[in-house]
Parts: sequence; structure tokens; C-alpha cells
Amino acid sequence: MTVELISVGTEILLGNIVNTNAAYLAEQCAGLGLACYFQTVVGDNGERLAAVLKCACERSDIVILSGGLGPTEDDLTKEVAAEVCGRKLVKSDMWTERIREFFTARNTTPTENNWKQALVPEGALVLDNLNGTAPGMIIEQENVKVILLPGPPNELIPLFEKDVRPYLEKLTPGVIYSQTVKICGVGESMAETKVKDLIDAQTNPTLATYAKTGEVHIRVTASAESAKEAKKLTKPVVKELKARFGEDIYTTEEDVTLEKAVEELLRSNKLTLTCAESCTGGLLSARLVNVPGSSEVFRSGLVTYSNKAKRRLLGVKKSTLQKHGAVSSRTAEEMAKGAALLSKCDVTVAVTGIAGPDGGTKEKPVGLVYIACNVKGKVTVKEYHFSGNRAKVRESSVAAALTLMRSCILKYISDVTFG
Amino acid sequence: MTVELISVGTEILLGNIVNTNAAYLAEQCAGLGLACYFQTVVGDNGERLAAVLKCACERSDIVILSGGLGPTEDDLTKEVAAEVCGRKLVKSDMWTERIREFFTARNTTPTENNWKQALVPEGALVLDNLNGTAPGMIIEQENVKVILLPGPPNELIPLFEKDVRPYLEKLTPGVIYSQTVKICGVGESMAETKVKDLIDAQTNPTLATYAKTGEVHIRVTASAESAKEAKKLTKPVVKELKARFGEDIYTTEEDVTLEKAVEELLRSNKLTLTCAESCTGGLLSARLVNVPGSSEVFRSGLVTYSNKAKRRLLGVKKSTLQKHGAVSSRTAEEMAKGAALLSKCDVTVAVTGIAGPDGGTKEKPVGLVYIACNVKGKVTVKEYHFSGNRAKVRESSVAAALTLMRSCILKYISDVTFG
Repeated sequence: MTVELISVGTEILLGNIVNTNAAYLAEQCAGLGLACYFQTVVGDNGERLAAVLKCACERSDIVILSGGLGPTEDDLTKEVAAEVCGRKLVKSDMWTERIREFFTARNTTPTENNWKQALVPEGALVLDNLNGTAPGMIIEQENVKVILLPGPPNELIPLFEKDVRPYLEKLTPGVIYSQTVKICGVGESMAETKVKDLIDAQTNPTLATYAKTGEVHIRVTASAESAKEAKKLTKPVVKELKARFGEDIYTTEEDVTLEKAVEELLRSNKLTLTCAESCTGGLLSARLVNVPGSSEVFRSGLVTYSNKAKRRLLGVKKSTLQKHGAVSSRTAEEMAKGAALLSKCDVTVAVTGIAGPDGGTKEKPVGLVYIACNVKGKVTVKEYHFSGNRAKVRESSVAAALTLMRSCILKYISDVTFG
Repeated sequence: MTVELISVGTEILLGNIVNTNAAYLAEQCAGLGLACYFQTVVGDNGERLAAVLKCACERSDIVILSGGLGPTEDDLTKEVAAEVCGRKLVKSDMWTERIREFFTARNTTPTENNWKQALVPEGALVLDNLNGTAPGMIIEQENVKVILLPGPPNELIPLFEKDVRPYLEKLTPGVIYSQTVKICGVGESMAETKVKDLIDAQTNPTLATYAKTGEVHIRVTASAESAKEAKKLTKPVVKELKARFGEDIYTTEEDVTLEKAVEELLRSNKLTLTCAESCTGGLLSARLVNVPGSSEVFRSGLVTYSNKAKRRLLGVKKSTLQKHGAVSSRTAEEMAKGAALLSKCDVTVAVTGIAGPDGGTKEKPVGLVYIACNVKGKVTVKEYHFSGNRAKVRESSVAAALTLMRSCILKYISDVTFG
């Protein structure tokens, strides 16, 4: 079964944004065993969009459109899809109600434009978008299913997961089962080299590696007639990966992120956590807080970007800052220790580094980061050299901090358990 | 003049990589005044690639293909392009020499496959790729120019800048100039309603609205024979937008973000800032720190996710938490005041709310957020109702906090200036 992606948006055509939606949808569809041969980007132009959609409907079994469902004049994906599929636009009572609720909750009144969003192609399945004012829609034609999704990723992704994936699963014959082995602290080339023989020999299941910041995910995908059989096919491969990567695998669960794995480790060992951040500026705390229920283990975060704050809040010594500098192993250590004193938490982690673009020197170049992890008084400090722009260095630092915390906590548990 | 982009690569179709080449090329082409109406991604499949290329050649003046120029069996972009354009492949003496040099410099011998890379469509312009073994190529047909570029960004980008941009500049007569008016604290539909007449009447310049979380950007784009003329055309429209949106416009500069605008306001008024965050968990600090040089004004951030941390670090009263709850106007106010006491900063902002998915009640539903801004002792607290998932509520809260800070600081300046 084939799927084709159409992204609608002038912003993509102008290069204002990178088309991450297409990458997300493509990855999801590949995971479902759908063959994707074409992806197209087209602007908010009725004639051109209609031409692209018609062509896609002729050559593919499923067409997923994203974008152009907003309330403005520009947005005409729904109108064009209805026309190409030969359907009228009709008012959806359910969605009219949802728009009313949405604006009542905000104490504002919908504009004329907003009511346009309650119109849907006649007979379409309406998917409840919990994060915006445009519903998702599925138009089932005789030879093709046309799926319409809103463009903002924070609407598109939840809607895909909640409604579209289950819908597609029902369409695809046989069963595809995927398991993802998530690895931290190992580079992509290293991981690939380690599994090259498995990838070269793959048939069913197949293996694919995905590089994420500070992580590598290996997806093992099997197809079979039943879920049980497909699962059975993946099992020995996942076992082999576990043997090869050992403790560097932090999970094999779809919904477990690295921060969640760290929190579960803290929770199950009754440990509390405080972060002290300089160059990451709160991103590490934000990732930890993003795990629902994290307040049980994540107590507080301290963003000490200025030297003053490092001294005042964390008690980093003036002499340390003068002699070693704010970006040094010693400062990271004192930050972690200071955070423990202030917060009384069992685990504290401190990040200090040069994210750039300015501030680098020959001795301390942009990308130099020190991370200290203190587990009940035992402090480990590591030096890192990250590449890329400011955002990339900060992202890499956060992933490295989580990876270091994880290994320090595992070490602590092993020491406690085995003396 | 129109341009169309074709990205060739199975890794993009599978979602293994994000198509950053297309974003780069699209932005470059837009800057050159070329209208890009279509971008297509297709795999390493001769038949499908030929169909896509034929279609592109019929509807566009320039077609830029990227990827599929490597030495392997899979790579067949050049072969397909030659066939579609009715040209034979012939050996390029210049490129044969370059391949020899390339491998000599690396002390290795080219494989049979590498020599394939010396073949080019007859009559094509050969572009010297300094970073790889595939040359760029330009095939000039009667009605269309077909440009072939290697896929790796570190080959594509230098080659585009060195040879393709100058080539395209010669083809394009006019100049495109864009200016973006960035607005905060106004919804997209509201903004659109306010400029509907301008959008309806647009010719040159054109107007387009872009919704961002908590912001709306309006792009004004003009085309003319010279940059000066194009700028002149946008001027009255930008002026009109300024009149309609007034203080809600935080910038008209491309590279100024909302956080940067807030920081510039702080800096120019010699004010320092500390944030106290609960539900946003460090995201507000992270956005502020992301502005290079922010340590001058952004002093520290406190992530007080647990009630203990709110009390211990910020001195929020136990009775307040008991009587009003952690998510309340009163708690937000005490957090902002406590942050001022602790940090001695001029401006402190506090965010507390329910980001969900759990923790909501009938009285205090998910999405309820209180933000307090304290400017030298004068505290403003606002209540917000955001929709969406956890990430969306947090993102909206951060944008609202920046918007509130901005308006409180502007109010303070106006009070100081005019008594």
C-alpha cells in the first residue's frame, strides 16, 4: 500500500521553515509498512494544490496533506480537497460546538474566520484536534483515502498519534510491529559500525538507525500475519542488540524518553534531583519537568547564567571563577556541590560551557562544556567538545547531562548493592 | 521566473533525515526573486524520477535537482536527467582529471564506480565541486535550465554559493525585498481581520500572515528592478501596519525575536531580570539565555516546580499555598516578589500553572496559568487560559510571560518619563 505526502505552505516554499512534518510523517508511515514514493510541497494556491492533489490521488492509495487548515483567507487545503473529491463543504455540528467551547474557555469571541473552520467536506471523518481550532479530516474515496492534518507540529503530531495511526493500522494488511532500541552515549557511526552486519543481512525484520541529539535509535521492524508472529520475529534481533550495546540502551519502550528513563531511575531509588545550569539556561530543567508527575523527583532548577548568580545562589568561589573561569571543571564541580547544599537533594547536576557564537577562545573554544554530577557527595565531572551552532551545543549538552546522570546513578546503585 | 526543487533520496522518503537542502535552496531562490511553486521528494527510482522531472521541466523555468549523484548503482539522477533532456553521457576530461587528483591527494585508488562520476550529459556546464567526487551540472534546454547538485549539504551549499547563485543572478531580472512586522499579544484571526482590506487589495507588495505561538508575523514582500525601489514599495505598507498595531509590534527587524526585543528593552533601560518558573520548568529562562550576550541583563532563573522549592527558594508562604494553591494569582505574586528579594533584580517574572495532562480540576482546569511581573516593586498579575497539550501550554505561557514583561516594562518607562 502506498502513501504520499503533500505539505501545503508558502513558508516551506520560501525556505522560512524546514519541513519537519514531512520527516515525521514519512518515518511514521515507514513504521506502518506503507511505501512512500513521493513527497510534494506546494503553496497556498488553489489551482496548483488541486493539480498536485489530483496527481497524488491517481498514483497513491493514501494521501496525507498537512497545513493550510487555518482560519485565514490563505488557508484553502480543505476547500481544494473537497473540490477534488467532489464533495460539498457542510457545517460540522461537533466542530461548531468545539469552536464555541474553545473561545468561551478563553473569554473571547470567535471571528467570522473562525467559523469557517467548522466546515468539513460532506461525509468526511472529523478528527478531534485537542490543540487547535482546525479539525483533522479523512475523506474516503473509492480508490484513495485523503487525510487532512493541521500544519503546526504540536497539533499534527498528537492528532496523528491519537487518530491517524490507528486508522492507518486498520488499512494495512498484515501486521507491522516495530520495536525501538534507544541508546545514549554512543555516536551514530560507532552504533552503525556495531550493527553493520545485521543491517547488511536484514530481510524481515529490517533494521534502521536514526540519529538523535546525543542518542541513536535503532528500529527493528517485522511484518507478519499476526502481531504475535511479528513480535516473535523481532525478539532475537532485539536480544542481539541488547548483547551488543548493554547498559548504553536506556529503554526499548516507545514512550520512554531519556529524561523519563532518568526520572524513573531516580524515583525507583527514592532520589531527588536539582539542576544548576549555565549555558543550557534552563533547557535541562525544562526537559525534566516535561515528564508528567516529575515533581516527585525533580525538586528545583537554578539557572545561574551570570557569574554573580553562580556566586550568590550556588556559592561558587570568587577565586575559582578568577583562576579557572566560569567554564571549567572546577566551576562545574562547585556548582553541583552548591546546588546540593542549597536544595538538600540527593542528586545535583551542573552544566557550564560556551554555546557560542561568541565567547570562544583558543584555549576554550565554542562547544567546550563541563558537566558535573553529584550523587550524595560523590562528584563526577566530564569535559565535552560539541560542534554546531548555539542551539545545537545547548541541545547536545542537555542530552550529555542526562546521559551522565544516568551512568552516575547506575554506578551509585551498583556500589550500594554490591558494596 | 519560476524555479522548482527536486530532492532525490530514499532517506528523505523514509523520514531518516529532514530535508534541510530544500529549505536552504528555497530560501536562496526566494532571495533571488525566483518564484518557487513546487518542491518534490522522490526516491532513487528511474521511472518515478523521470516522471517527476518531465513534469517539472514542463511547468518551471529552472529545475534544481539535489542528490543521487554518488558513485553507487543507486545513484541515477544524472542518467535520468540526460535521458529526459535527450542528451548522451560523455566523459568530461576536466572531471576525469579532478577524480584522479582527488584520489591521489588521499593516497587511494578510484574504484570502477568512481569513474562513472566523470560522465556528464553532452553539452552540460560542469561545476567544480571542491568537496566531493561528483561535479555539479547545468543542462540548458530551450525552455528550461536543469541544475544538478550533489546531496550532501557540505557539498551542495558551497557549490551553490560559488557557481549556481551567480548563474541564477544573471538569469533573473528583478529584486525581491521582504520586511516582517512582528506582533505579540494579538491572535492570528484578530490580526488577519485588522489587515483583511490590505490583503484583499494586495498586488505589489504582497502581505502574508504567519501564526507563531503567542505571536503573529506579517511579511510584506515587494519586487522591483532594484533593491532600493523594492524597499520603497514596502515602506508605506509597513507604516500602515505600524499605525494599526501600534505598541503590539515589537519589531520590524528580521533577526529580532520577542525575547531579544525584551532583552533590548531591559538593556537600554539598565534593568536586570530574574525568572521564577513552575509549570514552564525553565523554558522561559532558556529562551532568554538563547539571546547571545544575554548575561548582561538576564541574571538568574529559578525553577521551583515543587511546593518545597517555592517555599524554600522564593519564600512563598505555607498559608498561601494551603489557602490559594500553588496555581493562584497570590502564589504567582509571592513568587515574583520572592525572586526579587533573592536576586536583587529590577524585574522579576513568575509563572505558575497547570500544563497537564494531569492535575486539572473543575475550578482549576488544565491550561490555567498565572503570570506575575514585578518591575521595581510594582506587581502585575494576569490570568490565562491556554489550550493544547503539555508542550503547547508551556510554550504559550512562555510567550505570554515575554509579552507581559514587555508591556509592564513599557508602562514603567512611560510612568518614569511622563510622571
